[in-house]
Amino acid sequence: MEPGSDLGLGDSPLHRYLDGEFWSLKNELRRVLGGCPLFRHRYDLSLDEMRALTFQRVTFTMGLPLLKRAIQEQAEKTKNFISRSLVIGEVLSTADMATGVKEFVINTPCENAEKMYIGNAMYGNYAAVFAQLIINGRSQGPHCFIVPVRDEDGNLYPGVTAIDMMYKEGLHGVDNGILIFDKVRIPRENLLDKFGSVTPEGQYHSRIKNKSARFNAMLAALTPSRLAVTFQAMGAMKLGLTIAIRYSHSRRQFGPKAKEEVKIIEHQTQTLRLMPHLATALALTFASRYAGVLLDEDVFHGKELVDSRPLQALVAGLKAYSTWENIRCLQDCRECTGGMGYMMENRISGLKCDTDVFVTFEGDNVVLLQVVVRELLAQYTKQYEERPITSLLQSWAESGGDKLRTSFLAFNMDTVGNLTFLLKAVNFRERVLQRSLVARIYYKVMTKKEDFFSAWNSCLHHVASLSLAHIHRVTLEQFSLAVRRCPDQEDQALLMKFCLLYGTRLVFQERAWYLEHKYLTPRASMRIRTQLLDLCDSVKDDALRVISAFNIPHTSLHAPIAGITNPLAAWAFYPAPLLPPAREGARSRRPKLEAKL
Amino acid sequence: MEPGSDLGLGDSPLHRYLDGEFWSLKNELRRVLGGCPLFRHRYDLSLDEMRALTFQRVTFTMGLPLLKRAIQEQAEKTKNFISRSLVIGEVLSTADMATGVKEFVINTPCENAEKMYIGNAMYGNYAAVFAQLIINGRSQGPHCFIVPVRDEDGNLYPGVTAIDMMYKEGLHGVDNGILIFDKVRIPRENLLDKFGSVTPEGQYHSRIKNKSARFNAMLAALTPSRLAVTFQAMGAMKLGLTIAIRYSHSRRQFGPKAKEEVKIIEHQTQTLRLMPHLATALALTFASRYAGVLLDEDVFHGKELVDSRPLQALVAGLKAYSTWENIRCLQDCRECTGGMGYMMENRISGLKCDTDVFVTFEGDNVVLLQVVVRELLAQYTKQYEERPITSLLQSWAESGGDKLRTSFLAFNMDTVGNLTFLLKAVNFRERVLQRSLVARIYYKVMTKKEDFFSAWNSCLHHVASLSLAHIHRVTLEQFSLAVRRCPDQEDQALLMKFCLLYGTRLVFQERAWYLEHKYLTPRASMRIRTQLLDLCDSVKDDALRVISAFNIPHTSLHAPIAGITNPLAAWAFYPAPLLPPAREGARSRRPKLEAKL
Repeated sequence: MEPGSDLGLGDSPLHRYLDGEFWSLKNELRRVLGGCPLFRHRYDLSLDEMRALTFQRVTFTMGLPLLKRAIQEQAEKTKNFISRSLVIGEVLSTADMATGVKEFVINTPCENAEKMYIGNAMYGNYAAVFAQLIINGRSQGPHCFIVPVRDEDGNLYPGVTAIDMMYKEGLHGVDNGILIFDKVRIPRENLLDKFGSVTPEGQYHSRIKNKSARFNAMLAALTPSRLAVTFQAMGAMKLGLTIAIRYSHSRRQFGPKAKEEVKIIEHQTQTLRLMPHLATALALTFASRYAGVLLDEDVFHGKELVDSRPLQALVAGLKAYSTWENIRCLQDCRECTGGMGYMMENRISGLKCDTDVFVTFEGDNVVLLQVVVRELLAQYTKQYEERPITSLLQSWAESGGDKLRTSFLAFNMDTVGNLTFLLKAVNFRERVLQRSLVARIYYKVMTKKEDFFSAWNSCLHHVASLSLAHIHRVTLEQFSLAVRRCPDQEDQALLMKFCLLYGTRLVFQERAWYLEHKYLTPRASMRIRTQLLDLCDSVKDDALRVISAFNIPHTSLHAPIAGITNPLAAWAFYPAPLLPPAREGARSRRPKLEAKL
Repeated sequence: MEPGSDLGLGDSPLHRYLDGEFWSLKNELRRVLGGCPLFRHRYDLSLDEMRALTFQRVTFTMGLPLLKRAIQEQAEKTKNFISRSLVIGEVLSTADMATGVKEFVINTPCENAEKMYIGNAMYGNYAAVFAQLIINGRSQGPHCFIVPVRDEDGNLYPGVTAIDMMYKEGLHGVDNGILIFDKVRIPRENLLDKFGSVTPEGQYHSRIKNKSARFNAMLAALTPSRLAVTFQAMGAMKLGLTIAIRYSHSRRQFGPKAKEEVKIIEHQTQTLRLMPHLATALALTFASRYAGVLLDEDVFHGKELVDSRPLQALVAGLKAYSTWENIRCLQDCRECTGGMGYMMENRISGLKCDTDVFVTFEGDNVVLLQVVVRELLAQYTKQYEERPITSLLQSWAESGGDKLRTSFLAFNMDTVGNLTFLLKAVNFRERVLQRSLVARIYYKVMTKKEDFFSAWNSCLHHVASLSLAHIHRVTLEQFSLAVRRCPDQEDQALLMKFCLLYGTRLVFQERAWYLEHKYLTPRASMRIRTQLLDLCDSVKDDALRVISAFNIPHTSLHAPIAGITNPLAAWAFYPAPLLPPAREGARSRRPKLEAKL
């Protein structure tokens, strides 16, 4: 028997391409975790038992040579250590979300500023705390300190109070709590000195002179852990989709009179609900990998993250976008598996509860969208900084809009199915939203003399739209590049269909905006709808190849409705669907809508 | 102290109008449940403990004189007994969703045909089972039987197997299970004889001669319990919105430089996410009440539910629409309360888990949407039955479309904010979708000779759109009628703002369709967006009056972030916001967009 074959792991060019550079590392970890009884899916434990199990899981994981190596690499900043850490986080969270969330934090020296929701608060010996550093009565801004919380026997030190936050919607294994410090004395060495330090004589020193710049530098340090959340959300999507799609290819309901009922994947509504999420999971795979590579390059070249503001914005936006997509995806997976999907046995509902917090932690998504736009506007201003903003706006009003429109206008019937058209459309949307936002804020602040907060607040819906438009554009571009680079011709054809589906979905969901801006004619808009329905239908068998290439061990899938036997829930078992014959299947199902790259 | 004042219950014309005819009954039940320690919010129990507590809660509830009366009324079919039962179900599920779901089932003689998910399977003594009735080898179609499952000591009878389905996403107090019967003998009296009976000599008799008509009659019996789910979903929405809106009026974050931070309800994104849900909760209040009244009228006049097919369709559609709206609403409430909303203490996440199953039980929502459309098409065909369908379609193609358009066309700038415009718009959409669906199916079946299943399946997206368009139209109409009938002038003005918001939201979310059909110009469409943002902003203080009039006892609210003190979670406490001065507040905030009814 091949190693790992009992876990349902496979190997093909598509498996490797979807896993990327670190496919072998991921498989190694999958085999270890998939074969470890500690990671058997549990949902029948009390809060204390669940926390204790998670502690065991984390201890086991941190003891793995593979993980020790990764932590060593973090310390040494080995080349590509961030990308390697990210994929480890993804595999870990597929095995158990709480384990993925609890310890394996990448290079994040500080907890959030609220002092609430501190993970490991109920057992940890030390806490990293953000606090104002005050020297001789003068604040130097927030800094990060290491504060001893408990002694070796687990007793709290004097002045430290810990409050257990107890029951949450999910992630029961993570012991969140509140720590309160009352005149706790710590030695000056406990100040994490990346951004500033104090001499024995009490003098403050920092490379970064400006207080607000120092704060930005500290926030930039959150970037890798935000990207880690994106990888975890993707892991949850892949898991949920694998279960829902396998079930949809196995369960039968309704059908033509006097004939066998059809598989529910044949229902138009079922493909329409599941296939766009699958396309999105693929798109996010390549977009988040791209962000990881950029992060690694910057770190490798010794660049401070605070100087990579476009990258910070990209990561903030990807975190918001991916975690929202994950919520929608898992909700559809739950509904598409009916009452079966409501049973904890079948994993989807537990995943929903565990990952629901992603949309508000490591930076609330609505706040992160604003981070993205602040950066986009900064770029915009910089680009035109030699010219006063008024002339800029004037030139935009005079010609910009029409120029953009003309250069991108392509709503001919034959071209809406073309990837080039879709790429241009999302590009157009981002640019127009950006320019019009600049114009609106400028008018409010400069002409109407509104204070900046009110002006910004009254444009928040616009800000959110622009931010997502930016992330959509980058994600579609990265997906299309990944299709172009795919070395296997059949896999490339398959990925192209999903890439077209993803782009079509983006334009479809914003077609009102395109119609308002006369970028689409009413007829072209209706054609986009038909195209979406056709594409969803055309990829429903290919979907089996894609989820197989996600390569999730059977022990992590766990769900009886996905064909994983479990004697304790024999009533929920549905046999796993057979893969369609790979090569021939792919050939005969070439997309009707040929793409020009 | 007034009775109930410690529970935070109030009384005003608005309280009574929102509660409707049975406001006093609802208050009585709220006081009893709100004051009963059994109904204290618990989420810290094991599955067995939670089931036992739910059993106690159900026993307590069924012993209440008020409930005994309601059950007696069901048996006697007293006038309006359905509407009374529905509001009892709503209040019960606000106190505890599992209690609301578990026993208080209205007039539903039969469990679903899957034999799975049978509530009370692990403790009940009897089960109502749907099975084929076979007499002398000939099937008479599915009938409902009462099967004894356990003896008085709780031991299973021979031939009966019960499988516990154990852990679900929520509703832990409901003990779902699977019952398997192997040659269990039951006396013929155990056949529920509403639709058919068997004589002692083994002869079958039924008033309804046609087998498929008998099946339809049995499905019609599900109508009241589907409407009950709508009331429960509404209860959950009101609870979630009350908590999220109180918190949003209390918690502060961000603000103009060097000034106090603003309440988060001031953030444009926060009102845009919460206010449309509040408007929808109000709209559903009146639409579901209307359906209850129709049901009561039919029953009072001795009409069989199976003959009220438009009503069955309305209830099926309302169930699908309200339960989906509830999911979206609670998700936004969870996100708008950040990490706090993720804590079980604050109720929202538990409500989400409990009510998630609503979208797939008592009829999967996607299936119910098809029930709605089958009825709409039947009505359509009936209306034209004297004329052959071809001439009908021809006449539609020739003139129908344009006639509809002309009579409803109203996209002048000043009128999009007008309720009449909004009502006409949703009407137009329903009719056009209906006619075009008829044309598409006719073409596929008659011209292209596709089998009906394939034709229908390839139009499922269209079917779902039409079904929801129908429910949107009815719901907006009922809301506008309720505004017109509101006896208090100030309350009427307040409700009118929310009614406009609801209608605006409906048109906004389908504006792509209206643009495609040239019912909106691009400029009018943009104006709808502005109108939506303005209305959301303009009602954010009125929202406090509305949630106060939902009249939910503090013990049911429970959440510290909603200002309910709890010494066990003092860290989560946010003081309750003050109500704005009622009368003056209402007067000064008259809608800018005057409505013509």
